[in-house]
Amino acid sequence: MSDELRRAWAYLSRVAEPPCPQLRVLVDQVGPIEAADRVKAGNVDSTLMERIDARRELDCAVKDLEILDRMDGRLITPLDDEWPLLQLQSFRGDVTKRPNGHPPLVLWASGPVRLDEAAGRAAAIVGTRAATVYGEHVAAELAAGLTERDVAVVSGGAYGIDGAAHRAALACEGTTVAIVAGGIDNPYPAGHSALFHRIRQDCLLVSEYPPGEPPGRLRFLTRNRLVAALSGVTVVVEAGLRSGAANTAGWARELGRPLCAVPGPVTSAASAGCHVLLRDRETHLVGRAEEVVELVGRIGELATDEPHPATPLDGLEPVEKQVYDALPARGGHTVDEIAVLAALPPHQVLGPLTMLELNGLVENADGGWRIVRRRRSRAPG
Amino acid sequence: MSDELRRAWAYLSRVAEPPCPQLRVLVDQVGPIEAADRVKAGNVDSTLMERIDARRELDCAVKDLEILDRMDGRLITPLDDEWPLLQLQSFRGDVTKRPNGHPPLVLWASGPVRLDEAAGRAAAIVGTRAATVYGEHVAAELAAGLTERDVAVVSGGAYGIDGAAHRAALACEGTTVAIVAGGIDNPYPAGHSALFHRIRQDCLLVSEYPPGEPPGRLRFLTRNRLVAALSGVTVVVEAGLRSGAANTAGWARELGRPLCAVPGPVTSAASAGCHVLLRDRETHLVGRAEEVVELVGRIGELATDEPHPATPLDGLEPVEKQVYDALPARGGHTVDEIAVLAALPPHQVLGPLTMLELNGLVENADGGWRIVRRRRSRAPG
Repeated sequence: MSDELRRAWAYLSRVAEPPCPQLRVLVDQVGPIEAADRVKAGNVDSTLMERIDARRELDCAVKDLEILDRMDGRLITPLDDEWPLLQLQSFRGDVTKRPNGHPPLVLWASGPVRLDEAAGRAAAIVGTRAATVYGEHVAAELAAGLTERDVAVVSGGAYGIDGAAHRAALACEGTTVAIVAGGIDNPYPAGHSALFHRIRQDCLLVSEYPPGEPPGRLRFLTRNRLVAALSGVTVVVEAGLRSGAANTAGWARELGRPLCAVPGPVTSAASAGCHVLLRDRETHLVGRAEEVVELVGRIGELATDEPHPATPLDGLEPVEKQVYDALPARGGHTVDEIAVLAALPPHQVLGPLTMLELNGLVENADGGWRIVRRRRSRAPG
Repeated sequence: MSDELRRAWAYLSRVAEPPCPQLRVLVDQVGPIEAADRVKAGNVDSTLMERIDARRELDCAVKDLEILDRMDGRLITPLDDEWPLLQLQSFRGDVTKRPNGHPPLVLWASGPVRLDEAAGRAAAIVGTRAATVYGEHVAAELAAGLTERDVAVVSGGAYGIDGAAHRAALACEGTTVAIVAGGIDNPYPAGHSALFHRIRQDCLLVSEYPPGEPPGRLRFLTRNRLVAALSGVTVVVEAGLRSGAANTAGWARELGRPLCAVPGPVTSAASAGCHVLLRDRETHLVGRAEEVVELVGRIGELATDEPHPATPLDGLEPVEKQVYDALPARGGHTVDEIAVLAALPPHQVLGPLTMLELNGLVENADGGWRIVRRRRSRAPG
């Protein structure tokens, strides 16, 4: 990216409080350099003017980019391969009628992980800052389980659930993405600076706000839409009745992403928000990473039922089971004999026997069908 | 009731393993005395014969009634006003296709509470014997809350959740009904004999099995249908994946009664069965007695919302929030300064500032606008 182009993006990133759909339209129409020139000159329509007028003479682009460079950071723009296009395309239709229901203009990022790759298979783990030991434990278990299954853990870097999720993903050498509500040079909360440092070093720290910008109540809510959008599924682990996590949950729904909540003791205020979410029939009750992966997830990747022994017989059709069950434990038997034992007409026995043979459950040897004995196979995965 | 009639009921109660729909049909047709005579003589059709042949010569009626009298007990028969006719009429249609999906023939009872009155406004609280401290606490809280709202607490008298529910109802001087799976003279488990004594003294102990009968696995399952049938709603507080409470839950559904489950930690095996139930969209997630009463319950009796804290910022418009968030924590600021901070044109800042001032959130002093600091008000209620 040319310096001029970078400066244009950096300038535009700060000139309007994100997200600013009018600015985005202008950039789409004339490109970022021309858009920046027009904005600086005040040569824009009145709707956009209202959004940019207060800051248009404030150009911190050079300084912002210096800070970014010192952090080994980068701008991720819609022109980059790294831009998570598919995920951000969910901001359309009714979503755009919600305040802030728009994609970001540009993202400030630092860390070795590519955002598009992480977002391609990611789950958000979010929850209250006032987490309990239980909540942090479950958040960590989920994050570790997702990591084992190659799912990136997205969260907001806050105290409590967010922090537990990031930490567990890092500890398992997985991928985690922290999306913060202020500049990535000084992410909030300061008490997590060591955590943010590790995230930047090993994974990815992202913001739509330029360096130095402080977070604020509205910015947290605005940020939450990105947490939901950049994740295939959102899991609320613990949330009070007024937790910001409920807001992220709302974005997940709005964006058409599956929403999960973890139940907890009804005596725990930290789970009250989860229970409200779970009363909605659309919310999935989850407690294990497998159940989340199922929703992230590559098609065909379904959670196993709660652990119970599986046998090769589980997938059989009823008539195949009937034939299999009828086969004596020892010795070979003719189709006619098996028909009598299974109480089926002989012509209905050969088909099932062939399927059982394909499944390695029976074999045909010396003119007779017999059960194949073997050790029980281990459950896959 | 004449002695002859009582002896007939007592004899019939023991002669076939309950429930025996064929015996019930015979009693409906010819009355209990004639039915007892025919059964004793073996003068019944072959289907019924199969059910009664083993025991028809065993007449313990006199002894059973002596035991009942010594307990100050009574038989409750379909001819009595106390028979919970409406509740037991749910055993019809598809329910009767389930094994044991039939009403009882007669009930053995002891205690000052009338069964029909208790069942008229009752909730079942059931759960695992292997309850946790959490589960017993919630069971007790629910039972106490139901008692306060004049709802009888029905359960099975078992260790764990059942016992906690009965005890709390007794402690609150409420109504509780224990339905046991063996004779009421020696109810199971023996470790609850003091509890059963109090239930008989103050409330009601019920069984469809004659005195002296031991419980058994199948009888527990058979008993569960009565727990569900005699309650307007069933609440599963804690249940393992293979808990008998899941069986009671199944009966509640089958009988068209609302089913509730209490969530718990996903790390607790004692809540795993509840979470399975809660994945069914028909199951209500509950944690407070009000939410259960709503389902029992007299129409119009709706749970109030969960109490939750309100802040003065809740009612603000987005632009007002934007301005409020932009105001630095300290010092007074001009409209123009605030406009830059909020990224709004100056003429859009004054209106929101005025609204914020009216709400007591900001003040204008010495020519500058500043945030009004004050203690957070306490949550109402």
